[in-house]
Amino acid sequence: MSSSPKLDELIEALRCLPGVGARTAQRMAHQLLERNREGGRRLAQRLNEAMDGIGNCRRCRNYSDTELCTVCSNASRDESLLCVIEMPADQLAIEQATHYRGLYYVLLGRLSPLDGMGPRELGLDRLATRLAEGQVSELIIATNPTVEGEATAHYLAQLARQNGVRPSRLAHGVPLGGELEYIDRGTLAHAFSARQNVE
Amino acid sequence: MSSSPKLDELIEALRCLPGVGARTAQRMAHQLLERNREGGRRLAQRLNEAMDGIGNCRRCRNYSDTELCTVCSNASRDESLLCVIEMPADQLAIEQATHYRGLYYVLLGRLSPLDGMGPRELGLDRLATRLAEGQVSELIIATNPTVEGEATAHYLAQLARQNGVRPSRLAHGVPLGGELEYIDRGTLAHAFSARQNVE
Repeated sequence: MSSSPKLDELIEALRCLPGVGARTAQRMAHQLLERNREGGRRLAQRLNEAMDGIGNCRRCRNYSDTELCTVCSNASRDESLLCVIEMPADQLAIEQATHYRGLYYVLLGRLSPLDGMGPRELGLDRLATRLAEGQVSELIIATNPTVEGEATAHYLAQLARQNGVRPSRLAHGVPLGGELEYIDRGTLAHAFSARQNVE
Repeated sequence: MSSSPKLDELIEALRCLPGVGARTAQRMAHQLLERNREGGRRLAQRLNEAMDGIGNCRRCRNYSDTELCTVCSNASRDESLLCVIEMPADQLAIEQATHYRGLYYVLLGRLSPLDGMGPRELGLDRLATRLAEGQVSELIIATNPTVEGEATAHYLAQLARQNGVRPSRLAHGVPLGGELEYIDRGTLAHAFSARQNVE
């Protein structure tokens, strides 16, 4: 117990952040109090604005402050490309790594009947409607390479074909900078059988 | 850039926490939005209460919600023992590790003329007044074993003697569980020359 109950409460509340245990929370609280009260107040304000103000985009289901998110409402993006991802963080990763200028569709999960995640929960009915509208020419399936992600990808590919849209899938294989010796067997077997001709 | 400006702002604000870089801040923000908005709102409230409500105790200079902190206003603590520490976090460490039941005095720094930290900034005038009052019989000096901490300890010991108070200092030596082979030379030399008779 410290000399200030409010300090104890702050330390306790900081522990809701992922990866923050008792010691780290203590260090964070002391640092804010000693050196950066302004930063602490700003963080409180931003937290409130985010927790209450961020909903989901009507069109792509990603996080959004308004009915339509900044990506969906950006007229310069290519409406003929639609990339399906599991979580909002995946979009950040793709935006930072690639020059992709198409749109996204966020499942907010993956097909997982045991957890009650079926096509309805992933909004696949709305995705089907959108594909049927005819604007999308390619559906880029970027679900995770897990068992559930692969099952979801399979379902999405069928959905695309049914609506006359060409499905594609991120390439699997040896990661750049990896060493063959240390790559797991599944990845190596896949990379071997999916080998490409050198032009 | 994500789909939500509010999310970007939250990620940016989280980076004021020590040890939190861009990736960790992203993970924290997504985790709060996906799984724990209630925790995020509570954290915002506790941050506001702490940043605006925590001042310094009139008596010991430690963090306090009220004029007198919970330790100084606790009648069951021994007023004849006074432990001088550099920072509030040191008190937490001592409270958690020992059964000390005396009071504290927090310097909020250490003697460091180049940084403009002199006796006045550390509140040593108020400490001298308190020592002169005659209630304190032992001044436990628990500054850090750094060059500046040692200089501060030296000054504090003089101050105690001038006011008829017995000064004491935390023992230096080999840490428990340490291996002699890996202990730094200074500590080992000190432990060697300060060796104690086995009873």
